[in-house]
Amino acid sequence: MTGSKINTTSDDTICAVATVQGGALSVLRMSGSKAFEIADQIFRPAIGRKKVSEQKARSLHYGVLHDKDEDIDEVVLSIFRGPHSFTGQDVVEISCHGSRVICRRALQMMVDLGARMAQPGEFTQRAFLAVKMDLAQAEAVADLVAANSEAARRMALSQLRGSFSHQLSDLREQLLQFSSLIELELDFSEEDVEFADRSQLTLLLEHIMRMVGNLVDSFKIGNAIKNGIPVAIVGKPNVGKSTLLNALLGDDRAIVSDMAGTTRDSIEDTITLGGILFRFIDTAGIRQTQDAVETMGINRTWGHVEKARIVLLVVDSSHTADDAEAMCCEIRASLNVEDQLLFLVVNKVDVGKPVWLTDEWIEKQDVDKCICLSAKNKDGLEQLQDYLVEASAENMEESCGVAVSNIRHYEALKNAQEALLRVSVGIRTGLSGELMAVDLREVTDSLASITGELTSQDVLNNIFAKFCIGK
Amino acid sequence: MTGSKINTTSDDTICAVATVQGGALSVLRMSGSKAFEIADQIFRPAIGRKKVSEQKARSLHYGVLHDKDEDIDEVVLSIFRGPHSFTGQDVVEISCHGSRVICRRALQMMVDLGARMAQPGEFTQRAFLAVKMDLAQAEAVADLVAANSEAARRMALSQLRGSFSHQLSDLREQLLQFSSLIELELDFSEEDVEFADRSQLTLLLEHIMRMVGNLVDSFKIGNAIKNGIPVAIVGKPNVGKSTLLNALLGDDRAIVSDMAGTTRDSIEDTITLGGILFRFIDTAGIRQTQDAVETMGINRTWGHVEKARIVLLVVDSSHTADDAEAMCCEIRASLNVEDQLLFLVVNKVDVGKPVWLTDEWIEKQDVDKCICLSAKNKDGLEQLQDYLVEASAENMEESCGVAVSNIRHYEALKNAQEALLRVSVGIRTGLSGELMAVDLREVTDSLASITGELTSQDVLNNIFAKFCIGK
Repeated sequence: MTGSKINTTSDDTICAVATVQGGALSVLRMSGSKAFEIADQIFRPAIGRKKVSEQKARSLHYGVLHDKDEDIDEVVLSIFRGPHSFTGQDVVEISCHGSRVICRRALQMMVDLGARMAQPGEFTQRAFLAVKMDLAQAEAVADLVAANSEAARRMALSQLRGSFSHQLSDLREQLLQFSSLIELELDFSEEDVEFADRSQLTLLLEHIMRMVGNLVDSFKIGNAIKNGIPVAIVGKPNVGKSTLLNALLGDDRAIVSDMAGTTRDSIEDTITLGGILFRFIDTAGIRQTQDAVETMGINRTWGHVEKARIVLLVVDSSHTADDAEAMCCEIRASLNVEDQLLFLVVNKVDVGKPVWLTDEWIEKQDVDKCICLSAKNKDGLEQLQDYLVEASAENMEESCGVAVSNIRHYEALKNAQEALLRVSVGIRTGLSGELMAVDLREVTDSLASITGELTSQDVLNNIFAKFCIGK
Repeated sequence: MTGSKINTTSDDTICAVATVQGGALSVLRMSGSKAFEIADQIFRPAIGRKKVSEQKARSLHYGVLHDKDEDIDEVVLSIFRGPHSFTGQDVVEISCHGSRVICRRALQMMVDLGARMAQPGEFTQRAFLAVKMDLAQAEAVADLVAANSEAARRMALSQLRGSFSHQLSDLREQLLQFSSLIELELDFSEEDVEFADRSQLTLLLEHIMRMVGNLVDSFKIGNAIKNGIPVAIVGKPNVGKSTLLNALLGDDRAIVSDMAGTTRDSIEDTITLGGILFRFIDTAGIRQTQDAVETMGINRTWGHVEKARIVLLVVDSSHTADDAEAMCCEIRASLNVEDQLLFLVVNKVDVGKPVWLTDEWIEKQDVDKCICLSAKNKDGLEQLQDYLVEASAENMEESCGVAVSNIRHYEALKNAQEALLRVSVGIRTGLSGELMAVDLREVTDSLASITGELTSQDVLNNIFAKFCIGK
């Protein structure tokens, strides 16, 4: 991605193809003050019909796309009049036959008549500049287009419709109450009065910190929804971890062999189950080894265990109860009970279910679920999938309010959280109103940067450059 | 392609995604008697706005796509009321954010409410069944979507707009005049009269045969426009044919080495120059060889020379005048002067231009063009490209009327041509009106099969199965 500079003077007219080549139809989009004027020169409506510029808003028109005397295609043209359009400007969309040749020709004609090729995300940026949406909502447009699971779609739509923005504006409103009192004190600073009742302020502050804290915490879930819930598959060598990965993905993703230690690199891939995206990570088998490469792989395994939301500990049904118990202990000890789940997977039960696998034994291991399956024969796989979906859906429910999924938002919230902490300490230690006002300003500025009220042009350019063309 | 059977009862409502995944937006399309009813259940217009079924035709509506209580996306819905729509039925198009998740969900909802997934080309088939277009026009829709050059687009658009169909109906009208007179004779057969003046009929027949003949001949050009003008690159081994191919394609398509005889398989690829698609064919170098595989390759070379529209004969600038002359002679002798062009390409002129290459020498060789170039350095390439475009554009101009590009049409026309010949012979030999009527019927039936007036359901299914989904 080159750091192409987006023109912020939005007087000019931009055009782009909003669909990918290869479909039955293509849609061209044009936005700006000259959109109708240009459309009139390249679109010939049916006989007796009015020009584009004279047509009503939100109307559709059959006609011929033409380049002077040469007809290019038969098309349907849609008219959206500013300010009641997506970008707030006059917008024309042309639905033509899906052909690269036609699209290229149409764009060429628009550019020749004074339009310019749109930068990535420039239509959405215009919506933002026209105050049709704030920055967090604009970013949700890209998230919605990129959504690869129902959960991600739901989260992006909720953000697009302002749920996150509303929470932020609630927070800022409460902060402004707070800082107005502090600033009032500054005006009367020579008189040494305290307008802001410190105990009431402390209560308010606690409330705000809790809300910001919740948003910061929601990033773990929001990020998991967007990029997949990390599920690490761990265990001793040759218990069938890679076979399980392949079975889960329905795919020959990992190399499988009878040789212990076949998997060295961690292999990961995502799949959607029950509308939730999971990121499965196959790891190197845990054992004592002299092999330097394998040791590096095993070290990585522990890193994956740490970051996983769910750990699938795979044991071989032919192992002894002591072996299985030792592995459970070892993995459980390295997990965070609050955040992480441990599923014990007893594999290769096609050969036989181990006698030691009793309800009492399972109870003792302190695992969240225990599943018997045969990865090779794909027996028992559905139960594992059901458990995964069930365990994750609960999580999703919790965050059904608002989940932060954008790393930029997360960083701004972390920043606000730290500044809030300084304010809180300041109150306890009797910090001067002046210094407290600085910290408060940092909090409101951080929150404002999320919604784009205080965002530099560089940051804006960066954000929209990641959009696709035509959005 | 499975021979899926297309439902010809077009009462049911069909739905499909008409765009390819990956763009800024996706378009869903629904056609049939329940289209508005289903749309009303999944689309919630802005507050105060009327239901889809109560809206005016050719209008656009912002709103929310929803599945009962759950909102799926914010969309724009387009309404086309039958019979004034593409399919002749009620049609709804939904433009949503371009996401596989959203499209899948929307289709699911439509199907749950009684729509059915459309077969490939089924929207166009409905247009055909509703007599919105004939079969030749319907086929042009697929050609337009597949057009990969300006010339192909122009030809498909012209066919879509009925230019070809009009010619066919002209022909049929004249034939009907003819056969009505013949059939009148049959009615009075016992009286042995001749209503149809045989000499006038002969004139008319000649005219019709000329028109059908032109259409049959135009297939060579129409096919070249659609699939690329065949240009064979031939010459002795190691003169740089593959280097020239790569230079023309701007690509490392063929393996190039200093070893004579590197290319054995013929390599071909297409590229668009000046809006015209060319199909370049790199061939095995022509020489006497004991190598059996190479000999097979060389035999193929002659096959390509035969089918090429333009032959690029490449000679090495270090060769002698006699060698070059011998090659020119050999190739020229195997070409059809009327149909095929021979361009002499003197390669490797970076090393030096041969002294024997004078205007008089070139004149003597009877080649259509002579170009000096260095394929390695890409010097002189533009001139070759210009000549190619120039020579082909003339051809395109000739066919600017109507060119047959569809093999099915070509076969039907050939069939008609043969039957016409039989009629013509019949007139000369005084064949009975009865037998002549049979042949005439074959001509009109063949022509009718092109426009779909007489086409079996199997043939129809076959044609539309090659369309893309959503068209």
